[in-house]
Amino acid sequence: MLGTNVVTQIGLIVRDIERTSEAYAAFFGLPKPEAFWTDAPEVARTEFEGRPSAARAKLAFFRLGNLQLELIEPDETPSTWRNHLNERGEGVHHIAFVIDGMQEKTEALASRGFPLQQKGEYTGGRYAYIDTTEALKVLVELLENDKK
Amino acid sequence: MLGTNVVTQIGLIVRDIERTSEAYAAFFGLPKPEAFWTDAPEVARTEFEGRPSAARAKLAFFRLGNLQLELIEPDETPSTWRNHLNERGEGVHHIAFVIDGMQEKTEALASRGFPLQQKGEYTGGRYAYIDTTEALKVLVELLENDKK
Repeated sequence: MLGTNVVTQIGLIVRDIERTSEAYAAFFGLPKPEAFWTDAPEVARTEFEGRPSAARAKLAFFRLGNLQLELIEPDETPSTWRNHLNERGEGVHHIAFVIDGMQEKTEALASRGFPLQQKGEYTGGRYAYIDTTEALKVLVELLENDKK
Repeated sequence: MLGTNVVTQIGLIVRDIERTSEAYAAFFGLPKPEAFWTDAPEVARTEFEGRPSAARAKLAFFRLGNLQLELIEPDETPSTWRNHLNERGEGVHHIAFVIDGMQEKTEALASRGFPLQQKGEYTGGRYAYIDTTEALKVLVELLENDKK
């Protein structure tokens, strides 16, 4: 359904991104990345459960050998990130795949029983969290990067 | 500390391995793998929290593009698997790394504040779950395969 089986990213929800970034950097012998906020709502055009949302999160990325590890510290606004923290605590939130054709892929998934949970834009591309939790026990994120 | 940053496996705890295997096979367009029980205690020599344990689990493996996905259905005996299911429900339990020198690695990690939580043998190698949950928000598993 995705056109790829390569897990490009593992995303974790954390309470304190500075602290957890330090722990990852020390554990894997990597430099501590600079954490940054997702874009403001008018740029990110975030939609959560079908409605525009002002939710944001602080992100930090580590390059591991074969994939990227993403740390996510949610703000207080309801979102896939904040709800995960409130309901399940810290831990793995999603596995991500780089795909082509976001619109068609999200529609095809929805028609197969995997609805869109949240989507948004970032510089150079867009993301969509697909609600695969009941079937796969983890969220699937689609990432589409603009062609250069 | 590990000598590698390649995530070789993502492990998920599930309640019903047949059902979740079917969902993964359908989602990724892969054949449904045969699930099997971990070895009996006298072969697996499982130790959980420092003591011999009779805990077992049913496992199924999917080969994704760049890593292996492991589904784990625990039996009722206390273990890293059963406790995760009881305390946190279904979801991602660990990320795994293939290492050399299990004894030295687990001792070095313990001395840095990452104690061994559970270990055991399987045909062709051995595993160790390191309690990295507080720092990394996910367990790290070490896998050491015998040289052929």
